[in-house]
Amino acid sequence: MSDQITDMDVFFNPKSIAIIGASDTFKFGYTMTKYLLESNFKTYPVNINKDVIFGHKMFKNINDIPDDIELVIVVVNNEHVLQIVKDSVKKGVKGIIIETAGFAETGIEKFVKIQEEIELIAKNSNVRIIGPNCVGVTNFNNKFTTTEIDFNQSIEGGTISIIAQSGVLGNIFVEWSASQKIGFSKTITLGNKVDVDEIDMLEYLEKDENTNVITLYLEGVKRGPKLIEILRKLTKPVLILKNGRSEIGSKAIKSHTGSIAGDDKIYDAIFKQYSGIYRVNNFYEMFDIAQVFATQPLPKGKNIAIITSSGSLGILACDEIERLGLKLAVLNESTIQEMKSISPNWTSLKNPVDLGPSLFMTFNKSLKAILNDENVDALLHIFAVPQKPLETFSIPITPHLKEMRNLSTKLNKPIITCVFGSRWVLEYFLKHSHKYKIPIMTQISHAIKTFRFMYDFSKSNKNMNTDIEI
Amino acid sequence: MSDQITDMDVFFNPKSIAIIGASDTFKFGYTMTKYLLESNFKTYPVNINKDVIFGHKMFKNINDIPDDIELVIVVVNNEHVLQIVKDSVKKGVKGIIIETAGFAETGIEKFVKIQEEIELIAKNSNVRIIGPNCVGVTNFNNKFTTTEIDFNQSIEGGTISIIAQSGVLGNIFVEWSASQKIGFSKTITLGNKVDVDEIDMLEYLEKDENTNVITLYLEGVKRGPKLIEILRKLTKPVLILKNGRSEIGSKAIKSHTGSIAGDDKIYDAIFKQYSGIYRVNNFYEMFDIAQVFATQPLPKGKNIAIITSSGSLGILACDEIERLGLKLAVLNESTIQEMKSISPNWTSLKNPVDLGPSLFMTFNKSLKAILNDENVDALLHIFAVPQKPLETFSIPITPHLKEMRNLSTKLNKPIITCVFGSRWVLEYFLKHSHKYKIPIMTQISHAIKTFRFMYDFSKSNKNMNTDIEI
Repeated sequence: MSDQITDMDVFFNPKSIAIIGASDTFKFGYTMTKYLLESNFKTYPVNINKDVIFGHKMFKNINDIPDDIELVIVVVNNEHVLQIVKDSVKKGVKGIIIETAGFAETGIEKFVKIQEEIELIAKNSNVRIIGPNCVGVTNFNNKFTTTEIDFNQSIEGGTISIIAQSGVLGNIFVEWSASQKIGFSKTITLGNKVDVDEIDMLEYLEKDENTNVITLYLEGVKRGPKLIEILRKLTKPVLILKNGRSEIGSKAIKSHTGSIAGDDKIYDAIFKQYSGIYRVNNFYEMFDIAQVFATQPLPKGKNIAIITSSGSLGILACDEIERLGLKLAVLNESTIQEMKSISPNWTSLKNPVDLGPSLFMTFNKSLKAILNDENVDALLHIFAVPQKPLETFSIPITPHLKEMRNLSTKLNKPIITCVFGSRWVLEYFLKHSHKYKIPIMTQISHAIKTFRFMYDFSKSNKNMNTDIEI
Repeated sequence: MSDQITDMDVFFNPKSIAIIGASDTFKFGYTMTKYLLESNFKTYPVNINKDVIFGHKMFKNINDIPDDIELVIVVVNNEHVLQIVKDSVKKGVKGIIIETAGFAETGIEKFVKIQEEIELIAKNSNVRIIGPNCVGVTNFNNKFTTTEIDFNQSIEGGTISIIAQSGVLGNIFVEWSASQKIGFSKTITLGNKVDVDEIDMLEYLEKDENTNVITLYLEGVKRGPKLIEILRKLTKPVLILKNGRSEIGSKAIKSHTGSIAGDDKIYDAIFKQYSGIYRVNNFYEMFDIAQVFATQPLPKGKNIAIITSSGSLGILACDEIERLGLKLAVLNESTIQEMKSISPNWTSLKNPVDLGPSLFMTFNKSLKAILNDENVDALLHIFAVPQKPLETFSIPITPHLKEMRNLSTKLNKPIITCVFGSRWVLEYFLKHSHKYKIPIMTQISHAIKTFRFMYDFSKSNKNMNTDIEI
């Protein structure tokens, strides 16, 4: 037990696993079963209908397995789940992930009852249960997963963890992290939460040394006061997406995971009251903001500089800066003169610094001048360049990313790059940005909101940075 | 003159063109020059320094060209622009597009003065001038462009037109339209607006039979009362993105195109007052909404049905529906029963209809049941499916798109598909969606806002649809 940080650890680092309902035909659970059986995780397949699967002996029942089992993953039909939970408790397992759907969320009395019985078993035994109606967890640190993801493809990890409810999204997050270089540490889906809930996982992630930023998607909450208590104590930044703001949204939650949304106004007030807790509006915003917390230093003040290749987008950013109570940095005259000495006469060098197409000659020097200006606390870099000339001139973007990384680290100032245009430009940046840890996003409003949240976090008691506010 | 709908027509259908500052070296104007010289548009290159370019004789001066010239495109250095405008007027051209930057937006007195002189020439002659500080126009109907785009690649046109200021964005819009299948009719950038402004272009687009939806990006307005008058008269839907909401944004506009932003509150009030005019927050929202106006019928009421593969995203959509004053459609019991007869017992069939992974067996039949329900006015389709199983099962999405198109046309109800996940899913849909004219977007909030705007438009006096509101 000494290497476990909480009893949640069994879900992320199980020493032995049984998959109940394991299958080698194309159905739910297939990809996970194949992956785990072929991995180094000690995995036993259980299915009453077959003898061998992917070259592994199949067991009829978990109690036939001649070994201790720490974690059970359940993907059988909803009708059989209760018996399997009973068998697992008898076997002495530590954790069960019930992925099967079709319980309280159906509203059908029979299935609501089964869920209640499972809940009771969890309460009266030492077993911890995740689900039902979820896809469990993925641990990017040891490549353990109970989702439908093939971890053999290269997926770079990171320090962001997410707690969510939905099964479908749990699979998509992992894929997304690979394509968008989000850099996850753990993804967790909790489904109907008969036992393990967001509070257990928040406690786990607070202690998890691979997690620096926590993102939380909430539908309903069963232990409200306890959630408030833990949120207050957390030292890591938490981004919360809370569904069911509306009356019709709340009703829909009931048929999704059988939870009660609760009064949104109360949640909103609580989230606003605690520093380090930030509410976001959708998943895109959530991950855009999280990746900056995960990779960039906190700003020491509110003064934002903008370097852009499009004047119009620079102005859109100004509107957001004012709307969110930040300031447009006033550049020193010497900074402007430094840029003027290397720029064509038609460029606009007051903040927002609009380099237009001269960008490729003057970017790195302008960047250096701006970031060295003590009136600048953070930089928004807006990249809007048509593909054709960029390809024609074969202009590489890595020198820009490299210099941003160098200066950001050296001067301890956060940088965000917003790209604008067709999808090629995002691909083009994502190919390199992860290496240099420069966060890439497509929405200027997300970037400015990020700076606001980071500034607030830097001023909160949760942060050791105690520089004086300007 | 009989084939011209206004004097703006010369910018979109010029019979003869001169490019001043034409170049065959890699600089601004290169791609356009090459494209136009190799096209069927009668184009004469003018450059004092060369004799031949891309196999075409180069002229030293526009007045050396032994032919009438309708349109002049200027890409020379800012110092030479005034003389070229004078030469062009002498030659009797109808239109000039000055792409060169470095005028009033620099704040340098010398260049501000040059711009004023050009403005005066436009006022006192018959010539119409677009710019300076822009990239002119693209006409997708005849493939004429003054932007840095190679029209030889296949770019599908459409019925959305955009009026903007910025040069950089003008190029990007065209690229974007190709990759995102936005379907433009005309893209127009106006730069510093010494003469031609958004009012001229709104009048043109209102008459243009290839334009059904007008999108307008505004920084400053010089003829406020006239703009209000034309906005009131327009019969086509207009989506406006107005920059400079904030004080610091307004200041930035001055150094961008030398315009005055004006009091944002006044604009906001005006935009709200006129039906058919809708304010948006960014370009993504603008084009997402425009593509639905361009391809879908207007909803007859406020009742939105949702069909989703992710319960969580369905609930997020519910929150947006309530926030924007729409209604979640209450499905007929017969509709629910029809779906129940083909669905697994764990699916949630009340609106939002959450099909989960059963989507691929039951989508088309569920879709048909929902859209045939007279309580449904519009459908939001949320597609969130991991890539791996989709590829494993090789499930084609075209039958879904085809059926959506069929039913949408037959029943006259709008449909929007929101995809969620990594970029592959967007690519996957975009490959086919354009053919079936099902609008694809990634943001649920944009989809619901679209339904709200379309509903409002259907109730406005600008629309012939006079069905009774429920």
